[in-house]
Amino acid sequence: MSRGDKKSQSSIRKEDVRTLIKNIGKRVYKDLDSQIFPTLTLHTRSVKNLVYDPNLRQYVLGASTVTRSSQNIKQIRPFTQLIWLAYFTDKLVSEGKTSTLRDVFYSAQAFDVEFSDQSESDDIITDLEVILSRAREDFNVYPEERSAIFGDLDIEYTVKGYEGRGLNLTSHPDGFLIGPSLSTAEFIDTSAEIIIAVEKGGLFTRFVEEKVHERFKAIIIDTAGQPPRSTRYMLKRLSQELKLPVYVMTDGDIYGEHIAMVIISGSANAAHLRDLAVPTGKWIGVWGSDIIKYKLPSIPLSDIDIKRVHELKRDPRYSGGIWAKELEVFLKIKKKSELEAFAKYGLTTIVDKYLPEKLEEAKSY
Amino acid sequence: MSRGDKKSQSSIRKEDVRTLIKNIGKRVYKDLDSQIFPTLTLHTRSVKNLVYDPNLRQYVLGASTVTRSSQNIKQIRPFTQLIWLAYFTDKLVSEGKTSTLRDVFYSAQAFDVEFSDQSESDDIITDLEVILSRAREDFNVYPEERSAIFGDLDIEYTVKGYEGRGLNLTSHPDGFLIGPSLSTAEFIDTSAEIIIAVEKGGLFTRFVEEKVHERFKAIIIDTAGQPPRSTRYMLKRLSQELKLPVYVMTDGDIYGEHIAMVIISGSANAAHLRDLAVPTGKWIGVWGSDIIKYKLPSIPLSDIDIKRVHELKRDPRYSGGIWAKELEVFLKIKKKSELEAFAKYGLTTIVDKYLPEKLEEAKSY
Repeated sequence: MSRGDKKSQSSIRKEDVRTLIKNIGKRVYKDLDSQIFPTLTLHTRSVKNLVYDPNLRQYVLGASTVTRSSQNIKQIRPFTQLIWLAYFTDKLVSEGKTSTLRDVFYSAQAFDVEFSDQSESDDIITDLEVILSRAREDFNVYPEERSAIFGDLDIEYTVKGYEGRGLNLTSHPDGFLIGPSLSTAEFIDTSAEIIIAVEKGGLFTRFVEEKVHERFKAIIIDTAGQPPRSTRYMLKRLSQELKLPVYVMTDGDIYGEHIAMVIISGSANAAHLRDLAVPTGKWIGVWGSDIIKYKLPSIPLSDIDIKRVHELKRDPRYSGGIWAKELEVFLKIKKKSELEAFAKYGLTTIVDKYLPEKLEEAKSY
Repeated sequence: MSRGDKKSQSSIRKEDVRTLIKNIGKRVYKDLDSQIFPTLTLHTRSVKNLVYDPNLRQYVLGASTVTRSSQNIKQIRPFTQLIWLAYFTDKLVSEGKTSTLRDVFYSAQAFDVEFSDQSESDDIITDLEVILSRAREDFNVYPEERSAIFGDLDIEYTVKGYEGRGLNLTSHPDGFLIGPSLSTAEFIDTSAEIIIAVEKGGLFTRFVEEKVHERFKAIIIDTAGQPPRSTRYMLKRLSQELKLPVYVMTDGDIYGEHIAMVIISGSANAAHLRDLAVPTGKWIGVWGSDIIKYKLPSIPLSDIDIKRVHELKRDPRYSGGIWAKELEVFLKIKKKSELEAFAKYGLTTIVDKYLPEKLEEAKSY
């Protein structure tokens, strides 16, 4: 509630997640009051229950559910872990503190709640995401990895100690880390008309130096390879709240294509979430066909690369459009290129020539 | 020259490196004018020529040199590559553009200068560092990886388009990326009395949330594991120009100990440089002995860990003080812990109890 009585997106989100967490507790108490053993029911995350939704262009969870009952000797362990996690994350949110997956694992020991290793606690955190239908960032569990953002966007923080303080995201030309403070900041104003996510830090710096933010009215995001979840969460918020189109630029190989795919269509691991995908986003390159068109230096696909192409061809997300087409091109030319390969034609060619041509081309698909 | 006629550190550095590069060219022209084949002479970087300097507590290059002559059919290739690189980096510095190791590899192709792969061009870049006795960051070749900084430090940029613009490094609570702009910024004012480098992004965020920058008057650096070179360069500048002590906090294992060692004493790979080490820095933990003292959750050392301890014991940098002592402790207790293990005693215990105790203890060694 940073400005007058208009509730901020961020405080709505925060109240919302606390209500959802409290509802878990209410259900448990209700069962106890009725003298029955409390249970929790959630959608199954097994591969069998993964369903591809062609409209959303995303994997979603199917109808099958699993129950964790406090009456069942095998289920009481995950049941207890989940209840503890709900308590712990509610405390995090109410105190405005953040933590990491690893912090959660160790914190449990303070409460004599046992996790045999971190993968077990990571699993329970995902279960809580499923129950709440909220990304763990909403209950203040953040990844350790950070990527970066730069561009004309005025933000206003909502984190403790910074309420109401703002910043323009062009004020530090090396870029701003996307951590808990930026993830929960309000977007106040922008002159940007598009968002460009690039796979590499070197390109991000090049884009800033060559003023891509001014020349293309763009907010620039460095995904630093496969983007950390908080960066995908940020991309979603930017596209949704500012209603700006998202363009993704990666290396010219199938791993780059898949980075773009995960940004746009989400991952199978996060099939229970809608807040980590930008279905309107577009992958603008480097395509296999660009390697030919722009005469880029390239190296041959390895056997592992080729095997990976065949795997992706079986993935329903790759069943049409440029996704399918470019997989075929990679397979045909058996070559891959890096974004830096454009440097053969001068350090700024990627900005002066390639980027505007690809943005223009993107209007047609 | 941002303020009056006082030349900035950054512009001095820039003029300095350009003079050094031009001197290479002058030498070549002088040889040509004297009708002799130009040669370049540089210190050998082979392991045989690595000498440990106990006063500097660093590896340095010994007296042996190698000559690259344009008269020698085998040497004309690296000779030409070096001359081209000197030309290319001089252009980078004069135009205020930055590049990455990979950009350099591809850029050479624009000039028909051949590198068979990136490792060959990386090698020549290191040769240029040796000749100039300057880190490649000084001639605008930056790593792609970035880590972060936060704390009360007013800086003023010197990069093109931002000259004279400033920022306080507490204004973004997720932290500021350390890229070319921050690396070349002037340090204007600070209330900080110490610098704390932490190995992990999660801890960095915790430190910001718990106001370590105010409570301990500290500038906080996230090294994100083994720090990128630009972060080591930044630590050196901060310690030298602000005359502040540097404390390094890592995981409680030998890899953490070695991260601290490289920050403090430099790496063997960079034996030709003095600008990437902070010899007055101190490793404040997590020590092997802290695992016992603070009853931290731990896991057993693996066989690989134990082999690595024995390797490090043969390294002269580990020959005394806490370095040697803690290697022995790890070997004796055969355990390791992570920084997050303190979460067993509450998320803020590491800040409320461990950090102040270790800073106090550091006065005694």
